Amino acid sequence: MSYESVHGGAEPLMLDADRCFDSDVVVRRIARMLYEETRELPLVCPHGHVDARLLAENAAFPEPTALIVTPDHYILRMLYSRGVPMESLGARASDGAAVERDPRKIWQIFGEHYYLFRGTPTGAWLDHELYDLFGVRIKLSGVTALPIYDAIAERLQSPEFRPRALFERFGIEVLVTTDGAADSLDSHRAIRDSGWTGRVLPAFRPDALLQIASPRWRDELDALSRTAGTAIADYSAYLRVLAERRAYFKSLGATSTDHGVEQPYTEELQPEGAERLFALALSGSATVDDERRFVAHMLMAMARLSLDDGLVMQLHAGAMRDHNAPLFRRFGPNVGGDIPVATEYTRNLRPLLNAYGNDPRFTLVLFTLDESTYSRELAPLAGHYPAVRLGPPWWFHDSVEGMSRFRHQTLESAGIYNTAGFNDDTRAFCSIPARHDLARRVDANFLASLVARHLIDVRDAREMARALAYDLAKETYRLDGPLTDAH
Amino acid sequence: MSYESVHGGAEPLMLDADRCFDSDVVVRRIARMLYEETRELPLVCPHGHVDARLLAENAAFPEPTALIVTPDHYILRMLYSRGVPMESLGARASDGAAVERDPRKIWQIFGEHYYLFRGTPTGAWLDHELYDLFGVRIKLSGVTALPIYDAIAERLQSPEFRPRALFERFGIEVLVTTDGAADSLDSHRAIRDSGWTGRVLPAFRPDALLQIASPRWRDELDALSRTAGTAIADYSAYLRVLAERRAYFKSLGATSTDHGVEQPYTEELQPEGAERLFALALSGSATVDDERRFVAHMLMAMARLSLDDGLVMQLHAGAMRDHNAPLFRRFGPNVGGDIPVATEYTRNLRPLLNAYGNDPRFTLVLFTLDESTYSRELAPLAGHYPAVRLGPPWWFHDSVEGMSRFRHQTLESAGIYNTAGFNDDTRAFCSIPARHDLARRVDANFLASLVARHLIDVRDAREMARALAYDLAKETYRLDGPLTDAH
Amino acid sequence: MSYESVHGGAEPLMLDADRCFDSDVVVRRIARMLYEETRELPLVCPHGHVDARLLAENAAFPEPTALIVTPDHYILRMLYSRGVPMESLGARASDGAAVERDPRKIWQIFGEHYYLFRGTPTGAWLDHELYDLFGVRIKLSGVTALPIYDAIAERLQSPEFRPRALFERFGIEVLVTTDGAADSLDSHRAIRDSGWTGRVLPAFRPDALLQIASPRWRDELDALSRTAGTAIADYSAYLRVLAERRAYFKSLGATSTDHGVEQPYTEELQPEGAERLFALALSGSATVDDERRFVAHMLMAMARLSLDDGLVMQLHAGAMRDHNAPLFRRFGPNVGGDIPVATEYTRNLRPLLNAYGNDPRFTLVLFTLDESTYSRELAPLAGHYPAVRLGPPWWFHDSVEGMSRFRHQTLESAGIYNTAGFNDDTRAFCSIPARHDLARRVDANFLASLVARHLIDVRDAREMARALAYDLAKETYRLDGPLTDAH
Repeated sequence: MSYESVHGGAEPLMLDADRCFDSDVVVRRIARMLYEETRELPLVCPHGHVDARLLAENAAFPEPTALIVTPDHYILRMLYSRGVPMESLGARASDGAAVERDPRKIWQIFGEHYYLFRGTPTGAWLDHELYDLFGVRIKLSGVTALPIYDAIAERLQSPEFRPRALFERFGIEVLVTTDGAADSLDSHRAIRDSGWTGRVLPAFRPDALLQIASPRWRDELDALSRTAGTAIADYSAYLRVLAERRAYFKSLGATSTDHGVEQPYTEELQPEGAERLFALALSGSATVDDERRFVAHMLMAMARLSLDDGLVMQLHAGAMRDHNAPLFRRFGPNVGGDIPVATEYTRNLRPLLNAYGNDPRFTLVLFTLDESTYSRELAPLAGHYPAVRLGPPWWFHDSVEGMSRFRHQTLESAGIYNTAGFNDDTRAFCSIPARHDLARRVDANFLASLVARHLIDVRDAREMARALAYDLAKETYRLDGPLTDAH
Repeated sequence: MSYESVHGGAEPLMLDADRCFDSDVVVRRIARMLYEETRELPLVCPHGHVDARLLAENAAFPEPTALIVTPDHYILRMLYSRGVPMESLGARASDGAAVERDPRKIWQIFGEHYYLFRGTPTGAWLDHELYDLFGVRIKLSGVTALPIYDAIAERLQSPEFRPRALFERFGIEVLVTTDGAADSLDSHRAIRDSGWTGRVLPAFRPDALLQIASPRWRDELDALSRTAGTAIADYSAYLRVLAERRAYFKSLGATSTDHGVEQPYTEELQPEGAERLFALALSGSATVDDERRFVAHMLMAMARLSLDDGLVMQLHAGAMRDHNAPLFRRFGPNVGGDIPVATEYTRNLRPLLNAYGNDPRFTLVLFTLDESTYSRELAPLAGHYPAVRLGPPWWFHDSVEGMSRFRHQTLESAGIYNTAGFNDDTRAFCSIPARHDLARRVDANFLASLVARHLIDVRDAREMARALAYDLAKETYRLDGPLTDAH
Repeated sequence: MSYESVHGGAEPLMLDADRCFDSDVVVRRIARMLYEETRELPLVCPHGHVDARLLAENAAFPEPTALIVTPDHYILRMLYSRGVPMESLGARASDGAAVERDPRKIWQIFGEHYYLFRGTPTGAWLDHELYDLFGVRIKLSGVTALPIYDAIAERLQSPEFRPRALFERFGIEVLVTTDGAADSLDSHRAIRDSGWTGRVLPAFRPDALLQIASPRWRDELDALSRTAGTAIADYSAYLRVLAERRAYFKSLGATSTDHGVEQPYTEELQPEGAERLFALALSGSATVDDERRFVAHMLMAMARLSLDDGLVMQLHAGAMRDHNAPLFRRFGPNVGGDIPVATEYTRNLRPLLNAYGNDPRFTLVLFTLDESTYSRELAPLAGHYPAVRLGPPWWFHDSVEGMSRFRHQTLESAGIYNTAGFNDDTRAFCSIPARHDLARRVDANFLASLVARHLIDVRDAREMARALAYDLAKETYRLDGPLTDAH
């Protein structure tokens, strides 16, 4: 059976002005009003994965496939799930299997399978991007793929499609990247030195240096040592260098750190314990369980450093990385093979929150891939501990239904003022406006549903809509603080 | 950033007649009709935390802050979560830190932060209470806090705001309190002896006597011993005294017991096993794991006693108490630091349900803080075991969205007739009408959404609305039985 | 209190043409249009529990109670949950307790308690069946029970109510049964040999032969040995016979296998390990943990066989069977005492998916009773692994709200094209049309809610509606393959 064949003709692509809003007239009217008040607000992007080099170099984007298809794990995973081989999408296998190198052929396959994205956030973002940014007015399909490819390719050559021009056109007020602890931040420095006034800030992500059971750990440590210009022979040196790196990140505008873990386990080890685990790591004999305890300890250490340097701590928990081991061995990470697991916050975070969660200097932004924790653990934690804010729906849940569930399941215990506003969390630079637009629409619709049921009044809803679209992200991530003003 | 400053002026406070109802005209029309048929039904309050002394003494309430703010852990936790120190809310710290003692200043802080409660049940209950009971017609805020305080304070002095007058005005048919096993129930006796006809009944909660690893256990046992007027030197004496206390509670109208546990683990120990654990407890050496098994055993023992005395057994599972240990050490329990954990019912309750769940003499009302168990475990259990009823959404989930989710996720496996109606579960006496009103509105709206989709007809919906608002609570808690008729 | 007495009179039974559709005019109009395009499509029934003998013998159904009440565990459990003894419903107890044998009396009890099914899928299916198939125009109740009984009984005698006539009237294109590995499939052969053209196919379910710790295992093995006509003295013989049985099933049109487990644990044992466990089983000393590992291994083995024979593998996980042990001892299985447990897929399925999940020859259809896994584990797995499809909402979740939640929680990560369409999964032959109709309505309404919010357009929605109602079931279960064409 071939779904592709069914919808061959070129159909018009339209973006309805009321998309995402409930069709109920009362809700829709209010949602539209609230959205109109937030749609033009500047974009605050406190967490994402855009490469700073993009804005440092400000070169033209190569061509549509390299821009849109091959780097997007949302797209790769869905195509792969319906039988499209990775090789035919241009992914280079470690075993040297033949790989498709013609971007137009890859784009053609993408077009033929674009029906798979019906009703998904990828579909919504891409339609928005195609329509709004690239002026496409026909739906992507097998029939229309190449004409659309050519139209995009042409646009990408024009100066107004250079990254910095787009940054300004998008109305980005601040864009935060995610950078390894050993990263030199040369691109960030280059942006600063260039005289361009776009605000691009790094965020400190030391994950690779914490994973002491990983075969790559030693290389990471060596890289850190080189970047820092100092030997790291023991735990105290390691911790000192990490603190220095944080200070360096901060000097380039960083206001946050980020940590990714499978379970958000936290535990303060005795100094000897941390020393011992670090020595095991140096000797190459740390086990997975050693790593678990070391990471738990380092989360405590990082939180303690935040008391002093004021960096907001982000914790992304719940992804089992590279679940598809054969695919990982052939194509590496970030090809769509990460799968969530049930995640526990209440017990796991207790040591950290008991130590630092009552401290007004500390902010901890929690993310989850386990929606069952929204109402059970996360909203109660955020509605109690001064330090805790809930990050927006992440990854699989950054979607119309996912964002709606998040609000419906956290509002009543945490309110909206213990949430952190929106993150686009993307490496797809050109999708940033579409993602913020979708979030603002969903939040407007959510608030409208409260107003329509008289659970809040319009006056409150207007303030709340602005908070969700703009204020809370700036406040949570301390993007109005002295550091950033100095920029 | 200051949200408070944004909404300074006095804005009108309104309670829309259709609040909580979907704005869809079909649903709303039916919801309104169903609600009109239940709104004036008497309030059946089979589980809550009002202090019986309030109604025994029938003294005027002191002033607004002591009535509304300081005893309400929902309010304390939200204010604390956004950085308001406990001391500034009048909470006395064990370390003797300076504490705010001026109730008007505390109320002012409350008003300034009242925006945090937008869209929360606390906000909905309070707006209802302020409007309906205290005649307030402006929204609470930093600007309006003190005038509102004064208006409430004045009302509290009038005779019609005495507890018994309110009890009658509220239309409370029966109010059940929650009382420790060692409690003398003097207030309950005083109410009976006073000639006042308000029906106030105790419920038997022996938790403190089951927690054998707690440093407070010995004091609790001694208190029980004093109340019972007998020494308790071994397990059999302990069990006999508990049975006698149940009989005493029953003689004062009790129809139920209540048990709070983190996991609803049940297990029948051999008699020697229970004896041994009790002896360990007496010697002060019971461990947390001993306690876990002892509680599991005692839940079985309590269920067995229910076969004879007919007391309905309630089980509230899933709260990790005093998660915030530093806050607990400084301010004690019930300040908002309890956080839910994932909870397992299917395996944990199997021993108890296999032993007693098929017995027509037994009723077990189950509560949860883990909504993922609604459709997975609780509704299937209630839709099978004759003894099991589902308690209403509890604590964090006693809210518009929470109650709606409960109905949507339990109806199809358990029906409504295996649920227990509504509990207000409050220590805030003056919020009782607001809580019942909200529940009746949500249930009316839920049923209306079924009628509007032709899943039930209007005739059925009317019977179901009444059952949810009134009948099921009386039936489940046996409040129509001979005991209560004798009152 | 007696709810039954309240609604005594005969009320009209109506099936609204728009039932299940949102009352919002925009959604309803679109839902109706989409439903009109799928309602008459043939019924594809790739998984269910109808006994093939029914269609082999084609005898008249006995009478209403034996047809509708006594074999339906949904009905038994609900009646039992509100205190109706199993004996009064005709269930024969192992202890020889007196049992009701008069089907009219049992039907009367059913009628008196029919109010319990308000808003449940059982109620919706039965109302549809009573109205549409049996021409009943009054609501079932204590008052109307016997007249309705008589009307149904009369119809059951007419030739057009014979199973094959109904099969054709229902528009069933293909009906798949579920059959033990040792089953002779005589009824399937008889249907083929009869010249009747109705397409009835077996599915291979070897569960009983995998449960090596069960006291019934040895009997099952002996039955397999007899059916296969060969001794099974070791693991390799066992595996060979299973492969031969699969081939025999396939020769009679089977396109799928089915496996039921509590946890979907998978693990490849060394050959010696499997041999050793099998020898333990033969000696009658296999433990529950041995069984757990053996089943985990056999799931791997079955998947490997699927690579060669192409049988689609179904996995139904998450039911604790016979939770109510006393009831099981008295009345056996399938009386409503099965209760779901929390279920883990990400880690448990990793060995199997790493081994076979990337193989284009393999299809694995996953079912769950734990809705928290929809968005957390199942949709991400299905949206990545080529082999994985999500089975429709199962058992407790095969309901209006349940199907709606499934779509809302899986669409955005898996799309619809990684789902398997609908299964009626029923042993109640006469309820098949009602079940498909309900599913088609819910899916139409779901898609309409997307169109109404402009998340998809109408053209896409029409293709998607057809896919959900018809195409995906055929594609997933390979019911268009050469095998079935040959039929």
